[in-house]
Amino acid sequence: MTAPATTPATAPATPSEPSPTAHLVLTLSCPDRPGIVHAVTGALARRGGNITESSQFGDEETGLFFMRVTVLTRVPRSELEADLAELASTYSMRWELGEVDRPLRTLIMVSKDAHCLTDLLFRARSQGLPIDVVGVVGNHEDLRPVAEFYGVPFRCIPVTKETKAEAEAELLGLVDELGVELVVLARYMQILSESLCERLRGNVINIHHSFLPSFKGAKPYHQAHARGVKLIGATAHYVTADLDEGPIIEQDVTRASHADSPVALQRKGQDVERRVLAQAVKWHAEHRVLLNGNRTVVFP
Amino acid sequence: MTAPATTPATAPATPSEPSPTAHLVLTLSCPDRPGIVHAVTGALARRGGNITESSQFGDEETGLFFMRVTVLTRVPRSELEADLAELASTYSMRWELGEVDRPLRTLIMVSKDAHCLTDLLFRARSQGLPIDVVGVVGNHEDLRPVAEFYGVPFRCIPVTKETKAEAEAELLGLVDELGVELVVLARYMQILSESLCERLRGNVINIHHSFLPSFKGAKPYHQAHARGVKLIGATAHYVTADLDEGPIIEQDVTRASHADSPVALQRKGQDVERRVLAQAVKWHAEHRVLLNGNRTVVFP
Amino acid sequence: MTAPATTPATAPATPSEPSPTAHLVLTLSCPDRPGIVHAVTGALARRGGNITESSQFGDEETGLFFMRVTVLTRVPRSELEADLAELASTYSMRWELGEVDRPLRTLIMVSKDAHCLTDLLFRARSQGLPIDVVGVVGNHEDLRPVAEFYGVPFRCIPVTKETKAEAEAELLGLVDELGVELVVLARYMQILSESLCERLRGNVINIHHSFLPSFKGAKPYHQAHARGVKLIGATAHYVTADLDEGPIIEQDVTRASHADSPVALQRKGQDVERRVLAQAVKWHAEHRVLLNGNRTVVFP
Amino acid sequence: MTAPATTPATAPATPSEPSPTAHLVLTLSCPDRPGIVHAVTGALARRGGNITESSQFGDEETGLFFMRVTVLTRVPRSELEADLAELASTYSMRWELGEVDRPLRTLIMVSKDAHCLTDLLFRARSQGLPIDVVGVVGNHEDLRPVAEFYGVPFRCIPVTKETKAEAEAELLGLVDELGVELVVLARYMQILSESLCERLRGNVINIHHSFLPSFKGAKPYHQAHARGVKLIGATAHYVTADLDEGPIIEQDVTRASHADSPVALQRKGQDVERRVLAQAVKWHAEHRVLLNGNRTVVFP
Repeated sequence: MTAPATTPATAPATPSEPSPTAHLVLTLSCPDRPGIVHAVTGALARRGGNITESSQFGDEETGLFFMRVTVLTRVPRSELEADLAELASTYSMRWELGEVDRPLRTLIMVSKDAHCLTDLLFRARSQGLPIDVVGVVGNHEDLRPVAEFYGVPFRCIPVTKETKAEAEAELLGLVDELGVELVVLARYMQILSESLCERLRGNVINIHHSFLPSFKGAKPYHQAHARGVKLIGATAHYVTADLDEGPIIEQDVTRASHADSPVALQRKGQDVERRVLAQAVKWHAEHRVLLNGNRTVVFP
Repeated sequence: MTAPATTPATAPATPSEPSPTAHLVLTLSCPDRPGIVHAVTGALARRGGNITESSQFGDEETGLFFMRVTVLTRVPRSELEADLAELASTYSMRWELGEVDRPLRTLIMVSKDAHCLTDLLFRARSQGLPIDVVGVVGNHEDLRPVAEFYGVPFRCIPVTKETKAEAEAELLGLVDELGVELVVLARYMQILSESLCERLRGNVINIHHSFLPSFKGAKPYHQAHARGVKLIGATAHYVTADLDEGPIIEQDVTRASHADSPVALQRKGQDVERRVLAQAVKWHAEHRVLLNGNRTVVFP
Repeated sequence: MTAPATTPATAPATPSEPSPTAHLVLTLSCPDRPGIVHAVTGALARRGGNITESSQFGDEETGLFFMRVTVLTRVPRSELEADLAELASTYSMRWELGEVDRPLRTLIMVSKDAHCLTDLLFRARSQGLPIDVVGVVGNHEDLRPVAEFYGVPFRCIPVTKETKAEAEAELLGLVDELGVELVVLARYMQILSESLCERLRGNVINIHHSFLPSFKGAKPYHQAHARGVKLIGATAHYVTADLDEGPIIEQDVTRASHADSPVALQRKGQDVERRVLAQAVKWHAEHRVLLNGNRTVVFP
Repeated sequence: MTAPATTPATAPATPSEPSPTAHLVLTLSCPDRPGIVHAVTGALARRGGNITESSQFGDEETGLFFMRVTVLTRVPRSELEADLAELASTYSMRWELGEVDRPLRTLIMVSKDAHCLTDLLFRARSQGLPIDVVGVVGNHEDLRPVAEFYGVPFRCIPVTKETKAEAEAELLGLVDELGVELVVLARYMQILSESLCERLRGNVINIHHSFLPSFKGAKPYHQAHARGVKLIGATAHYVTADLDEGPIIEQDVTRASHADSPVALQRKGQDVERRVLAQAVKWHAEHRVLLNGNRTVVFP
């Protein structure tokens, strides 16, 4: 995205005067080898950083190492970034440096179903969900009042087969203009183009229903009803060009019974969807989700 | 099976002397229409039966009606059966009459994994699971000691492509000889032939792993690991000729994380498997599961 | 309450012309004895009623019998009521006759926390929660905008020690005036007087946090944090004069860890609270909850 | 205990020849301050140790820091211990060094209920629960066959008010003789003396039922039934002199309904008990549980 989380929004304080204390969150991954944690914590310690939370994971299968560490520091961010860049080069690291208390600039995309949007906006306002919802985009007008009740600008961008390219261009323009860092597909019933998926890779979260066994195609709740499933689930995942197959962030289920009609199943499903999506967005916004190929490492 | 649950094992008491009180469970299904509950409860009431538990369900979609009722009665069973047979003819009912406190004669089939067998035998002995395990059949010798510790005869019936027909004939012989009413596939890693499935229809319960999304083919836990699933599940279902697609009785899941190796996932899966299988067997043995086409109605 | 659920809001159709089909829900309890189900279903069948759902439960301990039955009927309601009154006298029944598709007239009471109110209003509008929220009463002004966004009148009735009697009188006036059938205390941080509890008995639902073990007194989430609990729960119950000890309708929990601050625990708690309260209100509004002394029978 | 986890069972390899690779697990806690992780990982890195898993937690409230790290190393254990001892003195650390693949020598204590014992023995044999059950002690003879089936010596130590001191002395003798590192009270219905609790502090795990709300005194499941609870739970905790109030390791619940008799509730409770106890024992045996005053830090 245009305003990556790793770029300071304002110019760093000049070195001559001490910076105020910042609470930063560093996430990184690299090929595993001895000494990484020591090197990283050394870079932080030399700058007087105090680690407040830290998790690591070494994937034996892929040989990759993952780390998330939060640190209180008074050192100017630019100096820390220089140190990390050096480390990154030594260890072939991919890394990001975010701020613990800065909510992610988030764009929510919707169609007509209100359950996920309502829940995200409520949690952002009252329940400490660390996102700053800078806009809601709908391909229909239905949810404008919900966005506006929460004081969030709503933009309607209708999509047809003919206007899809144009609509996506408008969307990308908005992403740039608003400095969007995270896009949440909150039951946005449109498929993003491959190029858009690629462009926003790792920064778009989607939610969809899930069952055991799973069903492809239309009317999934009718299929689930016909099959007599006893559990209704939902999966939140990063969007990739491979529809509904991106890296899974979170999943959950709720119980169903023979007495549930397809509509009742759908309502139970929507309940799980909003809960799972909110959890996934929270973890992502707290920089707790790291990509590991087509999987995720989540440090909850 | 040879000894259906609806047949009294001993001759009924002669009408001249009052029968002892019996606690019976009646399950039935038929096309829905006004008056069924009244007619059924009337048949029971006229015989002085006292209803202790009762559930009904009308499936709007299929137009079928389902009922389970438990009743305390002193009337000879044969008379009750005569009344019910008449009702059944009027309402085109399928029905079964079981005894609340009589454990089902159960045969458990296994291969090498002990988790489901151990759990079922323990629950049958100590936790009130209402089954009488009359035998354990394994296609390997591995679990003989487990069966014998619980005082249950173990029979090893190896199966190869060449001997499959013969092995199934031996199995059916055992089912007849032991008066088996329920067969539980407790991680029995063999596929039953179509004819055997048909022969034992509605009386064979299987357990298998389940994921969201689901995976076909070999090494499912490795596939689940590769996909990074956050839930591991299991499904208990009646066996039909359509492998792993029979009517679902019960499902459940447990949480997984990126830190779980394929082996760890498998162990978590086994934990869910034994829990889900025990629940399904309990409900079946308590006559709480009714077939509704390819689905079940469960009155828990 | 002034407008009991069993009273038809409009005059019954005259017997000379057939009534339109109504979908009614009958709930009843009485001392258990043979023949009750037969008698009740007979009363319904004689009037051409078709049972769509039905559940019964006999409590062996108290000797009480509970029944819920939904029925499609064209018979005038007054005639059905006459029949039921006769039955009730024979069997010493307590009974209520409601309408399946008529949402309960509901008053929600709040203080400052928005999570339960927001959730109930959303579910009533979009998720089929069968309540008609006719008013929101707050002892503070904070949640007026939420109510008004959903088009529900908000009344602020402040409460102090001195004005408590007066405030409750105003509340009761509102209950009468609006024909309120259900009062939901959605984190209303005031204790109702004994007389008010008595007056509205069985029609007021409250939600409160729950832990294992439980904690009395102020700052419960700080206590739970200090004790290091691994689960955070909530209980929805009918309000009685015995504070927080009324009949339990529903309970649930969510996981917590050492990393959760008291604030994080509270947010998790609020998540469970709104889910449990919504479930309890749904079951109550669908006439699925019957009182059994200080317990409930819930037919889900 | 007599054979602390930090003492190598065999003499360390002489420095002149390289040790075989060991997989060690280090747990530590100390007052929080900058540089701890760097110092600890430095000590490991200097010895060529490769970190395979690592978690940290800083408790803002108590100002304490907790760390668990697993490391592959070829350095002789004694040298690593010398380094750690030095670090520990600098940072006022409490620390323990265990082996990842060495099962804990465990003594299980029982009375008459088999569910927890059966489950632990099964999981130790077949499900990778990393404990080596070196003995089972019962105050009754009932469970001797279960222990012996799993090839574990059973010792009956009856306890009466008069013989309690003597019985505990025998128990302690056994703990010393067998080199016991962990004692699990698997429904052992006796209260340990204060001095015994103190002597084995942090190495005894107990399981007990839990409800929302909680109940004190006898027949808890009858009380839970009378109160109409909708959840049945269990808590695993370290034993302290303050009965049932030691640091909580794990909790879980299962659903109950009005239809559950006290016996049914108890069976559901036993199901949760064995699951929660097994989870707590697993985490403890994997050195994932650290004491934080009267709470625990669990790195799952």
